[in-house]
Amino acid sequence: MHDDKERERPDRRPPDAMSAPRYMDIATFMRAPTVRDWSECDIAIVGVPYDGAVTNRPGARHGPREVRNASSMMRAIHPTTRTNPFERCRVRDGGDVPFRRLYELEAVHAEITEFFADLVRAEVVPLAVGGDHSITLPILRALASEAPMGLVHIDAHTDTWDEFMGSRYSHGAPFRRAVEEGLIDPRRTVQVGIRGAQNSTEGWDYSEATGMRVIFMDEVTRVGVESVGAEVRRVVGSEPVYLSFDIDSLDPAFAPGTGTPEVGGLTSREALTLLRAFEGLHFLGADVVEVAPPFDPGGSTALVAATVAYEILCLLAQACP
Amino acid sequence: MHDDKERERPDRRPPDAMSAPRYMDIATFMRAPTVRDWSECDIAIVGVPYDGAVTNRPGARHGPREVRNASSMMRAIHPTTRTNPFERCRVRDGGDVPFRRLYELEAVHAEITEFFADLVRAEVVPLAVGGDHSITLPILRALASEAPMGLVHIDAHTDTWDEFMGSRYSHGAPFRRAVEEGLIDPRRTVQVGIRGAQNSTEGWDYSEATGMRVIFMDEVTRVGVESVGAEVRRVVGSEPVYLSFDIDSLDPAFAPGTGTPEVGGLTSREALTLLRAFEGLHFLGADVVEVAPPFDPGGSTALVAATVAYEILCLLAQACP
Amino acid sequence: MHDDKERERPDRRPPDAMSAPRYMDIATFMRAPTVRDWSECDIAIVGVPYDGAVTNRPGARHGPREVRNASSMMRAIHPTTRTNPFERCRVRDGGDVPFRRLYELEAVHAEITEFFADLVRAEVVPLAVGGDHSITLPILRALASEAPMGLVHIDAHTDTWDEFMGSRYSHGAPFRRAVEEGLIDPRRTVQVGIRGAQNSTEGWDYSEATGMRVIFMDEVTRVGVESVGAEVRRVVGSEPVYLSFDIDSLDPAFAPGTGTPEVGGLTSREALTLLRAFEGLHFLGADVVEVAPPFDPGGSTALVAATVAYEILCLLAQACP
Amino acid sequence: MHDDKERERPDRRPPDAMSAPRYMDIATFMRAPTVRDWSECDIAIVGVPYDGAVTNRPGARHGPREVRNASSMMRAIHPTTRTNPFERCRVRDGGDVPFRRLYELEAVHAEITEFFADLVRAEVVPLAVGGDHSITLPILRALASEAPMGLVHIDAHTDTWDEFMGSRYSHGAPFRRAVEEGLIDPRRTVQVGIRGAQNSTEGWDYSEATGMRVIFMDEVTRVGVESVGAEVRRVVGSEPVYLSFDIDSLDPAFAPGTGTPEVGGLTSREALTLLRAFEGLHFLGADVVEVAPPFDPGGSTALVAATVAYEILCLLAQACP
Amino acid sequence: MHDDKERERPDRRPPDAMSAPRYMDIATFMRAPTVRDWSECDIAIVGVPYDGAVTNRPGARHGPREVRNASSMMRAIHPTTRTNPFERCRVRDGGDVPFRRLYELEAVHAEITEFFADLVRAEVVPLAVGGDHSITLPILRALASEAPMGLVHIDAHTDTWDEFMGSRYSHGAPFRRAVEEGLIDPRRTVQVGIRGAQNSTEGWDYSEATGMRVIFMDEVTRVGVESVGAEVRRVVGSEPVYLSFDIDSLDPAFAPGTGTPEVGGLTSREALTLLRAFEGLHFLGADVVEVAPPFDPGGSTALVAATVAYEILCLLAQACP
Amino acid sequence: MHDDKERERPDRRPPDAMSAPRYMDIATFMRAPTVRDWSECDIAIVGVPYDGAVTNRPGARHGPREVRNASSMMRAIHPTTRTNPFERCRVRDGGDVPFRRLYELEAVHAEITEFFADLVRAEVVPLAVGGDHSITLPILRALASEAPMGLVHIDAHTDTWDEFMGSRYSHGAPFRRAVEEGLIDPRRTVQVGIRGAQNSTEGWDYSEATGMRVIFMDEVTRVGVESVGAEVRRVVGSEPVYLSFDIDSLDPAFAPGTGTPEVGGLTSREALTLLRAFEGLHFLGADVVEVAPPFDPGGSTALVAATVAYEILCLLAQACP
Repeated sequence: MHDDKERERPDRRPPDAMSAPRYMDIATFMRAPTVRDWSECDIAIVGVPYDGAVTNRPGARHGPREVRNASSMMRAIHPTTRTNPFERCRVRDGGDVPFRRLYELEAVHAEITEFFADLVRAEVVPLAVGGDHSITLPILRALASEAPMGLVHIDAHTDTWDEFMGSRYSHGAPFRRAVEEGLIDPRRTVQVGIRGAQNSTEGWDYSEATGMRVIFMDEVTRVGVESVGAEVRRVVGSEPVYLSFDIDSLDPAFAPGTGTPEVGGLTSREALTLLRAFEGLHFLGADVVEVAPPFDPGGSTALVAATVAYEILCLLAQACP
Repeated sequence: MHDDKERERPDRRPPDAMSAPRYMDIATFMRAPTVRDWSECDIAIVGVPYDGAVTNRPGARHGPREVRNASSMMRAIHPTTRTNPFERCRVRDGGDVPFRRLYELEAVHAEITEFFADLVRAEVVPLAVGGDHSITLPILRALASEAPMGLVHIDAHTDTWDEFMGSRYSHGAPFRRAVEEGLIDPRRTVQVGIRGAQNSTEGWDYSEATGMRVIFMDEVTRVGVESVGAEVRRVVGSEPVYLSFDIDSLDPAFAPGTGTPEVGGLTSREALTLLRAFEGLHFLGADVVEVAPPFDPGGSTALVAATVAYEILCLLAQACP
Repeated sequence: MHDDKERERPDRRPPDAMSAPRYMDIATFMRAPTVRDWSECDIAIVGVPYDGAVTNRPGARHGPREVRNASSMMRAIHPTTRTNPFERCRVRDGGDVPFRRLYELEAVHAEITEFFADLVRAEVVPLAVGGDHSITLPILRALASEAPMGLVHIDAHTDTWDEFMGSRYSHGAPFRRAVEEGLIDPRRTVQVGIRGAQNSTEGWDYSEATGMRVIFMDEVTRVGVESVGAEVRRVVGSEPVYLSFDIDSLDPAFAPGTGTPEVGGLTSREALTLLRAFEGLHFLGADVVEVAPPFDPGGSTALVAATVAYEILCLLAQACP
Repeated sequence: MHDDKERERPDRRPPDAMSAPRYMDIATFMRAPTVRDWSECDIAIVGVPYDGAVTNRPGARHGPREVRNASSMMRAIHPTTRTNPFERCRVRDGGDVPFRRLYELEAVHAEITEFFADLVRAEVVPLAVGGDHSITLPILRALASEAPMGLVHIDAHTDTWDEFMGSRYSHGAPFRRAVEEGLIDPRRTVQVGIRGAQNSTEGWDYSEATGMRVIFMDEVTRVGVESVGAEVRRVVGSEPVYLSFDIDSLDPAFAPGTGTPEVGGLTSREALTLLRAFEGLHFLGADVVEVAPPFDPGGSTALVAATVAYEILCLLAQACP
Repeated sequence: MHDDKERERPDRRPPDAMSAPRYMDIATFMRAPTVRDWSECDIAIVGVPYDGAVTNRPGARHGPREVRNASSMMRAIHPTTRTNPFERCRVRDGGDVPFRRLYELEAVHAEITEFFADLVRAEVVPLAVGGDHSITLPILRALASEAPMGLVHIDAHTDTWDEFMGSRYSHGAPFRRAVEEGLIDPRRTVQVGIRGAQNSTEGWDYSEATGMRVIFMDEVTRVGVESVGAEVRRVVGSEPVYLSFDIDSLDPAFAPGTGTPEVGGLTSREALTLLRAFEGLHFLGADVVEVAPPFDPGGSTALVAATVAYEILCLLAQACP
Repeated sequence: MHDDKERERPDRRPPDAMSAPRYMDIATFMRAPTVRDWSECDIAIVGVPYDGAVTNRPGARHGPREVRNASSMMRAIHPTTRTNPFERCRVRDGGDVPFRRLYELEAVHAEITEFFADLVRAEVVPLAVGGDHSITLPILRALASEAPMGLVHIDAHTDTWDEFMGSRYSHGAPFRRAVEEGLIDPRRTVQVGIRGAQNSTEGWDYSEATGMRVIFMDEVTRVGVESVGAEVRRVVGSEPVYLSFDIDSLDPAFAPGTGTPEVGGLTSREALTLLRAFEGLHFLGADVVEVAPPFDPGGSTALVAATVAYEILCLLAQACP
C-alpha cells in the first residue's frame, strides 16, 4: 500500500528541500499542504484567479497557478530574522476561490467576500494571491468589523479612481470604495511607490483629500526605503492593518508580468527591505496582486511575487501563538 | 507644407510595397486608409477588442492591434486568382468598436450591434477582427434582416453550448443564441474543424439536433479539404451567408496564440485551400476571431490571421460593383 | 466550515469544466483527484521527474509539472468514440516518484521500479509522464512477469543503442536493455517514426537484428498512418503490450520542447489518428516522455503531451471493469 | 453616418484613458492625432525606421512601430510637475520619414534631412523615434542655423568614432561628423552614461580632445544622477540645445532590446530623474534611438522608450506659447 | 602538454556523437574541422552573414552563427541512404566571408564573389549559409563559367523582381540579375513553393516569360512533392546545376525565423522528401538562406536549416571521388 | 589559396572590432584564438559544460556555448583602467573539458581536475566558464599546492551545505568539501551576496563556524559595494586567492538564466564595481558559473556573464609578465 507521505506532510512544515528537489510533485503554494478544514489552519494562502476588472491587459487570472509553481523555490528559514513561519504556524494552501458567476463583476466580488468570511470566522489569517487589484475590496469586506482598518498599500497607482467605463468596481477603484464603505481609515492608510502620468488627477486628489499618506516614487528615491518604512509604521500605528502589495509597484525590469506596468518603480531589493520594516505591525491579512503570467515569459514576476508572499508570510506568522 | 501623401492614399489601393517597406508607418489593417465616412467605403475591416466572454485564457482584446501590425505583410494581388481586392473595392480600416460599458457582457454586445448596424445601413460589408467569439452574435444581430442567414463556421468547437458560469453569452454559446434568435438557419449552417474532448455532449448534440452539418476533424482528414469545400457549398447554397473563422480551427503549431487551443487541427495550407473553395458564395460579412497575442510570442498567429483575413477580403470583394 | 468540495471530488469524474474555469486551482494531471491509497484507484497518472540520463539537452525533469499544468485543458468525453475514461475508471494523479538518491542513474532506476511495483501489486494501471526515456526501463521491470511484453514504441529514435559515455543506461538504450533482460519480446515490438542521421548504425541494426518491426518516417509518409496502425496491431497482437510515446516522434513544429528534436516527424494529427488505431489492444501500462519545458517557451509541447496522454488514458480505460 | 470621433480628436488632448481602454484602436505615438498639415502642429513625434548604419545587431527599423504600440500606455499629466504637454501644445504623430532609396546610407540621410527641414520651416519642434543613432546627424543638419547647438547626449557610447568598414556615417560616428560640420559645439556638449570596453580609444579621445564633457558611468555612480543633472545644465547653459537619448544608456536589465547593449548602465529611475533635471533648458528638438524590437521579446524596451519620450515631450512642451 | 584532439580531428569525420555530447565545444558547422588551406577540403560550408539587401525584416546576418550552433545536432549517416558525407569527402567549416565595406551593397557582393572564386579555383564545392537571398547572385558569379547553369530554387518568392527603392540588387532580385548576366539558364530553372500575394505581377511574369518552370504551392499541394521532384529532375537534366534553398519556402510553423514569412508553405517533411529526390543531379554548389535568428525565439528555424544543409551536403558529397 | 587570417590571428590581440563586425565567424571566448599547445598561452578561458550536480533546474551545461556567443560583444580596452588584457597576455580559448564518463558525478570531477592540472603544469592561468558550481571543487584540486588558497566567492548561496540526496558533491557543497580537503583557508575566505531562505541553517552555520567572512545582501545594501570591496581585500590579503563568481549573485532582473535564482541580489553595476575593487589581488584562477541558457530567453544572462568574465580577465592579466 502506498501512503503518500510526500503529500500528507507532517504539520507546520514544508517538505525539506534538502531532501526533495524543488521541481517535484504537484505545485501548492510554497509546497504547503492543502487544507480541508479551516480549523486545521492558522494562515491560508488562497488564490483568487479573477481579472475581469482590469482596465488594460488581462491575464492575472493565471496568477495563482504560476505563483504556486514559482513558490516551490521558496524555503522556510528567513535569512535575516532566522524565523521559520512554517514552524510558528500551520500554513496551508487554501485552494482558489471557486466562482459560480464569472461574468458579473459585482457577483464575483460577493463570492470572494463569502469565501474569505468563512476564513475569518475560523480565525484563519488570509494571504490572498490575485488576480487583479479589484479583489482586495471584497476581501476587506470580509475582514471588516466595527472599526475601519489601517492599510499599507504598495503600488504604482493609488487605485482611488472613481467610475471607469460604466463601473465603480474596476481595479483602479478598490480603495476609494473601501473608504466610502468604512472598511479602511484613510488617515491610517499609506500608499507607497505611486508614479506614472494620469489623464486626470482624480485619484491622487482623492487620496490626499481623505488624508491618506501618499509616497510617490520621487520621495522614495529621495529619502530611501528605510525612511519610508519608518513613515509607514508611524502612519498605521499599532492598530489592525491590512497589507496590499501590487506587483506593479516594482519596476518592469523586476516584474514585467503585470497588466499596467509603470517604468521607474521599486527594485525587488527595496521591496524586501521595505517589507522587513513592517515587522510587528498588527496585520489582519494581506494580498499580492496583479501578477499576469502571459506577460511574464521568463517567469521572473511569478518568482518575485512568490518571494514577496514569503516575506509577508513571515510578517503574518508573528501573530501565531 | 507637408501633405502627407503616405497616409492620404489614393482610393482603392494600398501603398505599393515595391516602393515602401512594409515595416514603416502607422499600422492599419493591410495598410488600408482609415475611413471617416462610411459612404467612402465598400468593405470595412473593423477591430472588436473584447475578450470578456472567454471561458479560459483571455488576451483576444489585443487581437486587432496585433493583426493590424502583422497585416502590413499582406499585399494586393492574389497568387492564384490574380484578383486585387483593393482595385475592386474601397477597402478601409474602420477602426475599433468604441466601448462605453466594458464590464457588462450584454451591454458590450449591444454596443457592437449598434456599431455594425451603422455599417450595414451604409451598405458597407464588414470584416471584423476579434476579440473572442462572443462578438459574432452581436454582429449577426446587426446584419439580420427578414430571413436567417446561412453560416460557414470554421472552428475547433461548435460554440453551441448553453449557459456557462451564469451567463448565456459566453464565447462558447453564440451560435446557439443565433439559432434561437432566428439569425442563422441551422440547415444552412456548416461547422468545420470540430474536435477536442468535452465534458458534456450538449453543444455537439445541439448542432446536430438543429440540423447543422458538423464536420469533425476526422472527417476532414478522411475526405480532404477539397471535398469539405464542396460540401460547404452544397450546404449553404447561393443565399446570403456569413463566414466566421475562429483561429483555433488551426492546429496550435500554426496558431498557438489563442485562448482555447485544441491539438489536431487544420494546417494553414488546408485553411487557405478551404477558403478559396468558397469563391462566389454570397457573403454578407465575415470575421476572424480568437487571436490572443499574449500567447503568441513569435507573432505567427497574428500573421496567419492576417493572411486568413486577406483571403476572406478577396471573397468579400467579389461582391463589389 | 470549509469542506473543499473542489478538491475532494466525487469519484470517477474530473471537475465539470462547464462550471469551473480550467485555469483555476492546483494543477493535478487532468484535474484528477490525488490518490492516497492505491486501492482507490484503477489508473494512476504518475510523474517521473528525472532527466539524468539524457545525452544532450536536459529539462525533462520539469515535464510532469508542466504537463500537469497544460492538462487542465483536457476534458472528459472523447470526440470520436464518445467514451469517458473518468466514468469508466477511477483515474487518479499518483504524484511524482519520490527520489532519495538523485545523482546515481542506476539507483534512481531502482527507486522507479520500486514505486511502480507498488502500483502493479495493487493492480493499478500506470500512465507515466517523464522524464527522459531512460525511465521506461525501470517501469518495464516493475511490470514484468513470466512472459516478455509486446511494445508499441513511437519515437524518432530506436533507443536501442549500447553504452554511451560510460553508461549502459542512457536514454538511448532502454529497449536494448529491455530485450536483454527479457522484459519485452522484440518480435512483438514495433517502432514508429524513426528518423534522423546517426553516427553509427548500431541502434538501427540491433532493432532489426532482434526482429523488431522498425517503421521509419519515410515508410509512414509512403503508406500513411492508418496503414501503420494496422501494421502495429498485426505485430503486437492480442497479448499484453506496453505503449511508450516519446514526444520527439512529433515534428519540432508540433513539439519543440524536447531534448533531442529531429526534423521531419509526425504531425499531431497523425499521432492522434495512430493512437486511436490501437483501440482494443491489451495495454499493461504506458508512458509519455521527453517533454522538456525549458525548450518549450509557448507551452505547446506540454499541451500536445497532455492531449496524447488523454488519448492513451482512453485506451487504458477500456480495460476497466 | 460614422463620424469617427475616436480618431478625429479635439485639439491639444490625447483620448481620455479613463474612458477608453488603452489597448484599443490604431496605435499612434501616445495616441496623438496624426497630422496632415504641419501648421496645425507644435510638436511632431516622427518615426525614422532606419537601421542600415548599425555595426552589430539590426532591428531598430522596427523601433517606431513598437514604440507607437507601447506608447498607448502613456497618459497626459506628469506625476511630479503636474504639467500636461497635450494641453500646452498641439502634439501630433507626424508619421514616418518616407524613404525612396533604402540601400544607400548617405542618400537615406539626405532624405531624413529633407523631411525634418520641412518641420523646421513650419516651426514644428521634432521628437524623433529611431532607428539607429546615425539618424541624429541628418536631423541636426535640418535643425542647424548660424550657431552650433549644444548637445545633451545620453548613451553608453560616445558615438564619436571615425570610419567603420568603409563608411564615415555608421551609428558610431554621428557626433564626430556633427562637430566637423559645425552642427554642435563640443564645449556645450555633454555625454552621460559612457561605458564598456573598446578596441581603440579613438572615440573617447576625440570627445575629450574637442572639449566635450564625458561623464562615464563610474562618475555617475560616484556622484549620483542629481549632480550629473546639475553638471549637464552647467555645460549646456541657456542657449539652444538638442537632446539625444540612446536607449542603450540604460542597463540591459531595463532595456534589453537594443543593438549594442552594454552591461552596467543607468536604471530607468535614474534616467527619469536625470531628464527631469533638464527642465527649462532651451531644446530645439530631441530623439530616442536604438530601440530594436526583435531583441525585446517582452516589449519592456519599447515601454521604457515610450516613457522616456513622454518625459522629453514634457520638456519640449515648455516652449509652447 | 595538451594536444587538443577534440578540435584537431582526424580527416573526413565529425566527432563521434556516441562518445561526445553534442552541446560541447566551439560550434562549427556540423562540428566539422575548420579549414586553413582550401586544398585540404572537398566541400566547404561557408557563412555569409549579410542582410543589407532585405526589403523587410533584417536579422539574417546572424544566420550563420545560429545555424552553426544548431548544426551540432546533426550526425553523419543518412537514415534512408545510409551514406556518410563525412566519410566520402573532406567536409570543412570554411568560416565566414570577411567583409571590408559593409555599407555598400554592390561592394559587399563583390567581396562575396572574390571569396567564393578562391574556393572554385581550389575545386572546393561550396555550401553557403546566409545571409539574405541577395548573396546568391555573387556566388553564382563566382561559379559561372562558359555555359549558364541550371537552377533548383526552393522559395516562397520568385526573387525575379526588378528595382526596389533605388537598387537592382535587393534580395527580391537575384535571379532576374542572374538571367540577365547569363549566369543561369531560365529554361533549366525551376522554382518551387511560390506563394503569397504581391503588389505587382512583375516577378511572376518575368519568371514565366523567360521560361522558368514556376511551381506554385497550389500545384505542390495538388500533385505532391514526389511529382514535383520528378518535374525538377526533368527541367534541370544532367547538366551542372545550382541549388538555392530559401528557408521561407517552409511554412512559418516550421520556420518562423525568417524576414519575409509567407503562410501556407512546405512542411519540413515535404522539404526533406523533395531534396532526397535530387540525388544524382550535377550540383556545383548550394546555399541555405534567409534564416533570421532574432525572429526565431525557440531556435527551430536554425535547426531545420541545419537539417536542410545536412541533406544538401549528402547531395553534394555524391560528387566526391 | 586561402590563408584564413581571420582565425589565425596575430598573438595577444582579439580581432579589431572596428574593422570586423561582432556577429561574424565562429564564436570563441571573446573572439580569442583557440589554443593547441598550452605553452603558447598565458590565460586560457575554458568551458566546463557540466550540470549533473544541480539540485534544481538544469541547463548550465549549455553555459559555455552561449557565453562564447555573447562574448563576441566584448572588446579589449577597459573603460576605467584603460588596460588591454589581450596586449598584456596571450589569452586563448582553451575549448571545453572533454568528458568520457558523463553519468558519474565523481568521475566527471576527476576528469575536470585532470584537465586543469595540465594547465597548471604549463603555468597557464585558468578562467573557467561553467557549468554548475560543483565544478569549482575539481578546479581547486588542480590548483592546490602546499598551502590552502584564499577564496573570493560571489554568490547568493554559501555552497557549504553537506550531503544532498545521497551525494556530498552537489553544487551546494563545493566549499565545504574544499575546506575539508585543505584546498581553501576559511579564514581567508569571503562570501558576498548571500541571501534567500533555507530549510536548514547548516550551510550558513558551517561558513561562520569555520571562520569564513559571510557578507549577506542586507550588509551589502547597508555598507555599499565599495566597503564590501575593501573588506574582501582585508580578508584575503596578498596571498594566493581564487575567485569564484556565481551568476546567481546577481538579481534575477539582471541574470534570470540560472538554475537557482534568488530575488534581491546585486545589480550588474554593483558587480562590476566590486570586481574592480579586487585589482592587485594575487589570483591563481577564477570561474564564472551557473549560467543556464534555457532559462535565459533574451540572452541577457550570457551577456552579463561574458562581461563579468572580461572584468575578471583584466584582473588575471595583471599577473602577466
